[in-house]
Amino acid sequence: MITGKITGLSVTDVRFPTSLGQHGSDAMHTDPDYSAAYVVIETDAGDGLKGHGLTFTLGKGTEIVVCAVKALSRHVVGRDLEDIVNDFRGFYRQLTSDGQLRWIGPEKGVIQLATAAVLNALWDLWAKKENKPLWKMLVDMDPNQLLSCIDFRYISDALTEDEALEILQNGKCGQKAREEYMEKNGYPAYTTSCAWLGYSDQQLQKLCTDALKEGWTRFKVKVGADLEDDKRRCKLIRSMIGPNNQMMLDANQRWDVDEAINWVKELASFKPLWIEEPTSPDDILGHATISKCHNRVMFKQFLQAKALQYLQIDSCRLGSVNENLSVLLMAKKFNIPVCPHAGGVGLCELVQHLIIFDFISVSGSLENRMCEYVDHLHEHFMHPVSIQHAAYMPPKDPGYSTEMKEGSVLLYQFPEGEVWQKLMASKQMEV
Amino acid sequence: MITGKITGLSVTDVRFPTSLGQHGSDAMHTDPDYSAAYVVIETDAGDGLKGHGLTFTLGKGTEIVVCAVKALSRHVVGRDLEDIVNDFRGFYRQLTSDGQLRWIGPEKGVIQLATAAVLNALWDLWAKKENKPLWKMLVDMDPNQLLSCIDFRYISDALTEDEALEILQNGKCGQKAREEYMEKNGYPAYTTSCAWLGYSDQQLQKLCTDALKEGWTRFKVKVGADLEDDKRRCKLIRSMIGPNNQMMLDANQRWDVDEAINWVKELASFKPLWIEEPTSPDDILGHATISKCHNRVMFKQFLQAKALQYLQIDSCRLGSVNENLSVLLMAKKFNIPVCPHAGGVGLCELVQHLIIFDFISVSGSLENRMCEYVDHLHEHFMHPVSIQHAAYMPPKDPGYSTEMKEGSVLLYQFPEGEVWQKLMASKQMEV
Repeated sequence: MITGKITGLSVTDVRFPTSLGQHGSDAMHTDPDYSAAYVVIETDAGDGLKGHGLTFTLGKGTEIVVCAVKALSRHVVGRDLEDIVNDFRGFYRQLTSDGQLRWIGPEKGVIQLATAAVLNALWDLWAKKENKPLWKMLVDMDPNQLLSCIDFRYISDALTEDEALEILQNGKCGQKAREEYMEKNGYPAYTTSCAWLGYSDQQLQKLCTDALKEGWTRFKVKVGADLEDDKRRCKLIRSMIGPNNQMMLDANQRWDVDEAINWVKELASFKPLWIEEPTSPDDILGHATISKCHNRVMFKQFLQAKALQYLQIDSCRLGSVNENLSVLLMAKKFNIPVCPHAGGVGLCELVQHLIIFDFISVSGSLENRMCEYVDHLHEHFMHPVSIQHAAYMPPKDPGYSTEMKEGSVLLYQFPEGEVWQKLMASKQMEV
Repeated sequence: MITGKITGLSVTDVRFPTSLGQHGSDAMHTDPDYSAAYVVIETDAGDGLKGHGLTFTLGKGTEIVVCAVKALSRHVVGRDLEDIVNDFRGFYRQLTSDGQLRWIGPEKGVIQLATAAVLNALWDLWAKKENKPLWKMLVDMDPNQLLSCIDFRYISDALTEDEALEILQNGKCGQKAREEYMEKNGYPAYTTSCAWLGYSDQQLQKLCTDALKEGWTRFKVKVGADLEDDKRRCKLIRSMIGPNNQMMLDANQRWDVDEAINWVKELASFKPLWIEEPTSPDDILGHATISKCHNRVMFKQFLQAKALQYLQIDSCRLGSVNENLSVLLMAKKFNIPVCPHAGGVGLCELVQHLIIFDFISVSGSLENRMCEYVDHLHEHFMHPVSIQHAAYMPPKDPGYSTEMKEGSVLLYQFPEGEVWQKLMASKQMEV
């Protein structure tokens, strides 16, 4: 069923000029151009199936991730897909532990982003070969096979393979009912589209009004650049959404630890549910309330140190499904709700698979749980997310929802794409 | 004195085929080709001075770091050197906080290595303009100017600027005597050249015999791949060096936490002084005895958590002199001895400046302190280290000792250099 030798891996630098509209702006990233290193894997199986994968970037530097993907491709091209997925743990280890390449990581930054792009494409291809959406393939998979995809190196002191197996076996109980629940109701989402830092108050008001009409009840607000601005914006949003809807804050790593404590005190009266990334993402002991991490070792310590109250997985910063599985299982063991990071380019499309699987087969709970949603760039995907009543509806198409429209890739590839050629010719953007 | 606008920044991928002789091999890096992304900065000052900088890599992936250096060069070319060094903190922040590039770090992995290469070249150029070796420029510098080179973001909860100033001011006391001591005796070193993992027992014996004759008294042994091998090698080395010389072990991140504890118990009878990198470099709570970190935030937590007993700075993994200064000051405050990581390509040449400055102006002590030394590739540098009686003698030439011989760069640049062309033609190496 999963036949085929990998005959080619191509990677494209795709950039959307989002900085023109301040979409995605926050206290640390004032002018992001939402971008992706986009990978396509082909095989000789003759079934026409391709694996599509990506990792999310912010514009400049995407070419560096592209370069890293090319360096990793030697581990992929020429391999049988079946051999890879039958020893996915070994393959993951090979990719992340290359004796020469691991020096420039290990398992962090550029090389981990590139690893994610490559592995995301392999998971997409595997799910397509199984003719299932990725979440469903994971739900149906034997627990032992799921475990065989996870590298337990550096986390076995927090979660043993036996413990992980027990969690997955217990997760089988009531699975069918939870799957039906998802099919009917979807996974609860919150929106970050209303309150980017660079938006004017007028824009905030209009977007918030629209979102409330559409049924959104949970809103994330970017903060951290200027305290008086933050107070005004938080007050405005709290007054619009009322006392019963939820508001979350995200400082995007802007503060020092003491600064964070003082700043957050000033905003406490607006009743935020969490403060996201108050300080350096490396600062476990700085006690973030919620944190995006670059690998399972960092998440492990945040959990061990009880330094987070919500855990944010990311489909493109962690090492793909493989590493996300280990983090979902650790979160279950430590009883911390997972609220995935999404947005960017394709992060919503990808992470919905992981969190729906988590509900059906691991956590079994929606308490204190929701998945981030940002409403842009979905139009470039072949199988964009479907949001109904502020919930992610389970994808039905085979694969990992990673495939972009060919036309979009052509238009937005950097720097050759028509969009960029025009922007450069008109000097609208300095690149 | 430090006039000149930066007119160009070039970067070269330089690789030495060290894997052919298993030099540098350890439990995680079985076939490293010691390499560097090598940066040259030129100005319009007309004084003929150039800044040379590098970061150390292991072969494959150097091209990724080269790509990252190119991405950073936009922040450098066109700038006045004087403006940069007069607000070096601001410049450091600009380089590490680029709103688009920081996503692929931040301050870790490829982008941090590239940052180090660029900043190392700027420090080299600055010291050359001052006509002093870098360590001497730092020793002579006003404490306030030193502080103005450091970014305190994310570390101010562990070390305030006032505390750092006090440390530097106190360091002035007895400085002259310590400088004279260094000039006469140098900084104590230990050798890692005798016991790479891939060396045969015969090779170990010969190298150890030679080193003892040369006056070495401290030896590092690579371990972690196979317990029985480790026992045999440790026993051999301990029997050769006797009970009074020192032996250190380095597992290069090979173990899980529990595995490390068990393995180290088995080797304890050989009386190692420390166990280096027993597990993931990200695992603060995994309690390393000594650890190399990728930025000041990680070092801060290792110090706060009392998770290391020795601290290893690295001239090319941290963000150059700027970030190393912050770590040296934190180590002083937390009273942890610094024993720098060196070896590789040029790491000895660079880090000697930092540790000699540390002794003269910060720590004021040699107790439990020594700097790693590895005896290869020095012949490619214009101003190689001078080791006398197992000690680093303070460099006398202006700059940061970063300059490589032009002939070496030409011969070893990858893949165009003659050495690589021949290796590829003879199929001696797969690249």
